[in-house]
Amino acid sequence: MFSMYDVIAKKRDGRVLSDAEIRAVIDGYTAGRIPDYQVSAWLMAIYLRGMNEAETASLTDAMLHSGDIVDLSAFGHLSADKHSTGGVGDKTTFIVAPLAAVLGCKTAKMSGRGLGHTGGTIDKLEAIPGYRVSLSEEEFRTQVRRIGVSVIGATGDIAPADKLLYALRDVTATVDSLPLIASSIMSKKLAAGTSSIVLDVTVGSGAFMKTTSDARALAQAMVDIGVRAGKNITAVLTDMDQPLGRTIGNALELEEVISFLQGDDNGLDDLREVSLTLAAHMAANVHGITPDEAYRQAYDAWKSGAAYEKFMEWITAQGGDPAWITDAAARQTAPVSETVCCAVDGYLAYADAEMIGLAAMQLGAGRQTKDDRIDMLAGIRMCRKVGEPVRRGEPLAVLYTSDPTRLSAAGERFLSALRISQEKPDAHPHILGVVCGSETAG
Amino acid sequence: MFSMYDVIAKKRDGRVLSDAEIRAVIDGYTAGRIPDYQVSAWLMAIYLRGMNEAETASLTDAMLHSGDIVDLSAFGHLSADKHSTGGVGDKTTFIVAPLAAVLGCKTAKMSGRGLGHTGGTIDKLEAIPGYRVSLSEEEFRTQVRRIGVSVIGATGDIAPADKLLYALRDVTATVDSLPLIASSIMSKKLAAGTSSIVLDVTVGSGAFMKTTSDARALAQAMVDIGVRAGKNITAVLTDMDQPLGRTIGNALELEEVISFLQGDDNGLDDLREVSLTLAAHMAANVHGITPDEAYRQAYDAWKSGAAYEKFMEWITAQGGDPAWITDAAARQTAPVSETVCCAVDGYLAYADAEMIGLAAMQLGAGRQTKDDRIDMLAGIRMCRKVGEPVRRGEPLAVLYTSDPTRLSAAGERFLSALRISQEKPDAHPHILGVVCGSETAG
Repeated sequence: MFSMYDVIAKKRDGRVLSDAEIRAVIDGYTAGRIPDYQVSAWLMAIYLRGMNEAETASLTDAMLHSGDIVDLSAFGHLSADKHSTGGVGDKTTFIVAPLAAVLGCKTAKMSGRGLGHTGGTIDKLEAIPGYRVSLSEEEFRTQVRRIGVSVIGATGDIAPADKLLYALRDVTATVDSLPLIASSIMSKKLAAGTSSIVLDVTVGSGAFMKTTSDARALAQAMVDIGVRAGKNITAVLTDMDQPLGRTIGNALELEEVISFLQGDDNGLDDLREVSLTLAAHMAANVHGITPDEAYRQAYDAWKSGAAYEKFMEWITAQGGDPAWITDAAARQTAPVSETVCCAVDGYLAYADAEMIGLAAMQLGAGRQTKDDRIDMLAGIRMCRKVGEPVRRGEPLAVLYTSDPTRLSAAGERFLSALRISQEKPDAHPHILGVVCGSETAG
Repeated sequence: MFSMYDVIAKKRDGRVLSDAEIRAVIDGYTAGRIPDYQVSAWLMAIYLRGMNEAETASLTDAMLHSGDIVDLSAFGHLSADKHSTGGVGDKTTFIVAPLAAVLGCKTAKMSGRGLGHTGGTIDKLEAIPGYRVSLSEEEFRTQVRRIGVSVIGATGDIAPADKLLYALRDVTATVDSLPLIASSIMSKKLAAGTSSIVLDVTVGSGAFMKTTSDARALAQAMVDIGVRAGKNITAVLTDMDQPLGRTIGNALELEEVISFLQGDDNGLDDLREVSLTLAAHMAANVHGITPDEAYRQAYDAWKSGAAYEKFMEWITAQGGDPAWITDAAARQTAPVSETVCCAVDGYLAYADAEMIGLAAMQLGAGRQTKDDRIDMLAGIRMCRKVGEPVRRGEPLAVLYTSDPTRLSAAGERFLSALRISQEKPDAHPHILGVVCGSETAG
């Protein structure tokens, strides 16, 4: 006889829960038989006592099976997904998805909206007039079959147990737990049904994981779950100490993506390195080639304009206005902008990604609560990145918003995120490590 | 601005909560502004991270002030209370209360009903026909003034925050936490308004605390709280490895009390030692005499029959039928009884109090759930106590119940609680230690 009390006490005392116990909690909670107050005590016990690999896998699997699982079996081993643990200015999906499609992956991606500095991937795509984020599962599969890529909002009822649990964790200070994060992400990724998964595990001030060792532990936990579930899975650790690229904000980020795909990587080393590496690992998993070989293919696919063509094909297939992409002058711009200038000479030594993300949110780029409306045009364009020289009186960034009353506080916050030094800081690597599924399995 | 989320996270991370934070949680929860699921996560964090002395005192004080505080100021330093952390066969209140009254204490005691092996003190008193457990606060004070003793069910609204919190702890596996136990008990004891408090902290298989060191830590925590609140407070650590006395069950225990008060302490060394010691510490606190001197007075008050007279006076003052006390033949007995005999010669080496308590509950003496009815006549009379010789074929105990279908399982459980050895076991002390408020304060 299952007793929620006993399961709470067992985890409280640091003991290992059985697969049946974890499934009974998730099934009972999803069905409304176990009350919030017991589950929140259990979550706090997990937060403080941890879960081993088998427990984390059971929790993932129970949440995965609480709802629908997308059927991508028609694509065999070619179906591929990429997921980021989140960051500031993180726009890689828009580059990686068409790149991987050019490299022969069937990129079938379901994304979410976002609470935070900017909207989620789906919010950002809505900056493109006409883009349809909701396709039926059949339309989704048809488009992936035809052109190799589609990105939509989650269809049907993906991992409803995770939604319930996450909402409870969010108000009980139990979000920041490795097994809970890993199982939450992986239950959704497994439900999304691709046979190959590449995880972008971000590290630094703008990421969930602040240190490389924490990020590596999370990456390993997620890769372990994926391997147990029979997936081709790789995690790439990427730097998120400063924002990725030069723009933060929904329309601003897409504009940067378009100019990058059109061949301009001036000052976008980080965006190029991270995007090409993620796409390369997707292709390497799907085709069984080396990541180095796949990287060379990805570079060519970008440089040749093939990825840009695929991007256009993808966006227009989902109803997006091609003129918004091809004609920069046709795009709407924010009614108000302000240039933030530098007060001293030197080098930009540090740009705190989280703080800059908060400044962007203050300008209207993100939601603080579920009901906030996103200002698609709001955000920040950074004129200088870490390591670049700055001069007194020269612009550091341009702030954009529809609400001029927001400028002053956001500007102050942005400036507080920067550190200027007299010496050129050491260069930072963009890729901090890779965790492969095969190593774990072997 | 108070944020429950931040207070949960702070305790989760092992940091010390401020007095204002703890009060805000208790006030907010009692007023219904903070939901169960946040409080249960907080309780689990407290369970696993602990609370220091100041935090425990703040929690106690916040719960104390969530409801009414009984006004016993008219009795000055003479008002006294005794509280036990619970046990099996624990009937000391019925002896200690009249004894302390004879020694000049104003024994004003509010007791509860019980979930567990037998009913609580108030349930047991209802075995006496006519006894009124509900008096108005004015009637209560008047009786204490007139005869020095009254025991009633809690009046008014004593520590409602503790009731709410306890109900939540009970279903979230967070009962067994030292600061939560200490603050729960002490909030109610402080609200009961006496200036002197003696705590009977039981130790052993039938007690909440299984080891002397755990019991001493709980005793010290409660004494610390009492001293901070300006009380004369002493905790006595008493043995609860086997049941106290020879009877477990509501009417059975009262019958044992009556025969003890009438002078028969044959085989009741433990009950005599514990009861006289508790009464002595009450008198010592109230009159400022030594515990040894007070113990001699308590012994005389028992031996002379003065305590029995006071008991009669107390019970009849609250409407109890004097004939039920004086005339054993007039008492109703259980419809069914069965004698459990010994299978081998030897000594009774161990009698697991908790297991015997569960057997008594199985016979009907206690409640498993709030809605169970207590069988007042059900229970166990032990013919042998630990250390006494047993012989094959001789009775070990008599089981009483109104429901013959319960006998077989309860008998088996009772026997499983016993260990017979060939050698006489070492004698066990009944009093395991004393924690004084003055030592702590000094």
